[in-house]
Amino acid sequence: MQASPIITLTSDFGLDDPFVGVMKGVILSINPRANIIDLTHGIASHDIREAAFTIGMHYGVFPERTIHVVIVDPGVGSQRRHILVATDRYCFLGPDNGVFSVIFEKEKASFQVVHITADHHFLRAKSPTFQGRDVFAPVAAQLAGGMDFRNFGERISDFKTLDLPLPNHEKNLLTGEIIHIDKFGNAMANIRQTEIDNVTRQGSQGTMKIFLSGKEVPLKEYYGQAADKMLYAVINSSEYLEFFINCGNAAKACKVSIGDTVEIKIM
Amino acid sequence: MQASPIITLTSDFGLDDPFVGVMKGVILSINPRANIIDLTHGIASHDIREAAFTIGMHYGVFPERTIHVVIVDPGVGSQRRHILVATDRYCFLGPDNGVFSVIFEKEKASFQVVHITADHHFLRAKSPTFQGRDVFAPVAAQLAGGMDFRNFGERISDFKTLDLPLPNHEKNLLTGEIIHIDKFGNAMANIRQTEIDNVTRQGSQGTMKIFLSGKEVPLKEYYGQAADKMLYAVINSSEYLEFFINCGNAAKACKVSIGDTVEIKIM
Amino acid sequence: MQASPIITLTSDFGLDDPFVGVMKGVILSINPRANIIDLTHGIASHDIREAAFTIGMHYGVFPERTIHVVIVDPGVGSQRRHILVATDRYCFLGPDNGVFSVIFEKEKASFQVVHITADHHFLRAKSPTFQGRDVFAPVAAQLAGGMDFRNFGERISDFKTLDLPLPNHEKNLLTGEIIHIDKFGNAMANIRQTEIDNVTRQGSQGTMKIFLSGKEVPLKEYYGQAADKMLYAVINSSEYLEFFINCGNAAKACKVSIGDTVEIKIM
Repeated sequence: MQASPIITLTSDFGLDDPFVGVMKGVILSINPRANIIDLTHGIASHDIREAAFTIGMHYGVFPERTIHVVIVDPGVGSQRRHILVATDRYCFLGPDNGVFSVIFEKEKASFQVVHITADHHFLRAKSPTFQGRDVFAPVAAQLAGGMDFRNFGERISDFKTLDLPLPNHEKNLLTGEIIHIDKFGNAMANIRQTEIDNVTRQGSQGTMKIFLSGKEVPLKEYYGQAADKMLYAVINSSEYLEFFINCGNAAKACKVSIGDTVEIKIM
Repeated sequence: MQASPIITLTSDFGLDDPFVGVMKGVILSINPRANIIDLTHGIASHDIREAAFTIGMHYGVFPERTIHVVIVDPGVGSQRRHILVATDRYCFLGPDNGVFSVIFEKEKASFQVVHITADHHFLRAKSPTFQGRDVFAPVAAQLAGGMDFRNFGERISDFKTLDLPLPNHEKNLLTGEIIHIDKFGNAMANIRQTEIDNVTRQGSQGTMKIFLSGKEVPLKEYYGQAADKMLYAVINSSEYLEFFINCGNAAKACKVSIGDTVEIKIM
Repeated sequence: MQASPIITLTSDFGLDDPFVGVMKGVILSINPRANIIDLTHGIASHDIREAAFTIGMHYGVFPERTIHVVIVDPGVGSQRRHILVATDRYCFLGPDNGVFSVIFEKEKASFQVVHITADHHFLRAKSPTFQGRDVFAPVAAQLAGGMDFRNFGERISDFKTLDLPLPNHEKNLLTGEIIHIDKFGNAMANIRQTEIDNVTRQGSQGTMKIFLSGKEVPLKEYYGQAADKMLYAVINSSEYLEFFINCGNAAKACKVSIGDTVEIKIM
């Protein structure tokens, strides 16, 4: 017997309230064999952009056929649509508010988007304030049970995408910004290893320098290479540029905030 | 092969300490196929009333045969009893301190309460400070394995119930209070949709108005209907009256606290 | 069909970021039947000692064949080794930084330590900043799938152990310190029931008194025995001496900190 597909949950629900537990109850009522994994419920309240980056960075580590449910949904109950995004390997469920923007970009043309309208698959007692429970949980449970995604509605092409803060590349200068600060105080920029490689390739006569809010920061290969309690940069495990203090809290010590300017210069 | 019954855990243990993980270890040592789901461990420390409302609001979304373990237990180790509540669909395990008061009310006469005394089913190395691990985890594991609930002790009828803060209905006035504030800052009252319906039915000539701490608050159907950053009311996903600021934190912005007075008036 | 072995995860990752979810994705990609249990992710950032005590206190409640993964790893990416500790009942995976010191002490001679070097079992896209994902998750998944631990590297004997803060016993005085404060504010000392028994046996003519930071604290059998809001001591569920205020927060009210001196005197 094949193992049931995995359902991952990503949200801004936190873990202090029973929201997540309730969604799991609904899923298991429909599909008792569902294997439900929390990716994270620590997305900042209503922060669609953080959710888009989070699922976009990590969906690929899960096995084929995983169903990724992403609920950061300030528009819950309004006319904004529920969508399903199907790729060769995965299904994604969430509100049509741009939360899958990074998926759209990474998966390019090889995905389909369905507007979920088949409300006979929803929970009967529907509330306009908790569609994670009433819409996304039952649809995820049925997908995990083997139902074809085409059963949930019509294909659409006018789904919403966010203007994500992508880095700006001009000659010898790549400009980005801080997009996430983790629990260790490490501050991640929206700049990938491949983008840095592009800049250094083009400006190959000069030396690459990294600046956070105008201050130069040396690059290390791993945290432990930084022996003192100064600020350093590293390419992190998602291949993004990250600022850290070894065994310290960079964001607190250096007052780094979401949106702070990051520059890569060839000088 | 049938899937194992689900065991849900609800407590004030939080997730920073290993209490919850240890309970799962004990359950899985006895019943390796148990499917354990956290409903929430974010109940305020020692707050039996919050636990009673939480399990009472959400137990019904879980599949039949689910075993709900609820541990908010300031009297751990004392003479207060361990009980098991059996309904047609579910089993509940917890201390006899009123934590199942809402269950008793909702399930009316169709439940049995057993005083758990069969200590040969408990963990051998018993401690008077962690009966979640030593008593409730092993009993839950054995129930999930198919053991009949009558094996754990004698039926009792003098189990404890709490005086829950129920709303007060007098003519054209329904008076309740705030009983929960969630991670988004939404503040829930102990007033259900059905109770509001009763008031409006009786006072059908007038208009219904909602007051929080004496200040009138307009009612919306869903969060997104409130375009500005003002305080509004909504019937939430558990069919209770809730106060919110759309994409804001109502409790912080308007200094709402547990126990604040809520009134529904027909004027 | 036998249930899959359990994999437990213990770390300082917290639950606000997707670190833990990502590790689970990697494990399930390799072994879709793995049963993954969070022991705790609330270890203080980089606190190897707290991790050593936590896994050392609780590993034994899990069923035989459980694989315990412990990642508190300030040296991630450096030359410090990855190790596997095998006992008769369990496997442990983590960095060679002393995180298994309590295991070594408890399991005495009956364990083997392997330096994990078989990097064809690691994740292909390796990063020097997240070896929980790239090294420990894949190795745990393969162990849970039945692979022999000897396949992962050579046996070593020069593994690292911490100087744990053990209590000091001189005649009629046992001196220890506070090593953990839990979410209820209970403060645990590094003094076990058995060590107290040793002192009282030797000083059997006198009376045992307990002091925290020089102040005498009476001993109770369980929390509820302390009727007032004063500080008391108890032997906790892990058989360590613990200080508490019944239904209060001892650490906050009495300003107890990690490292505070605890004394047991026979007077």
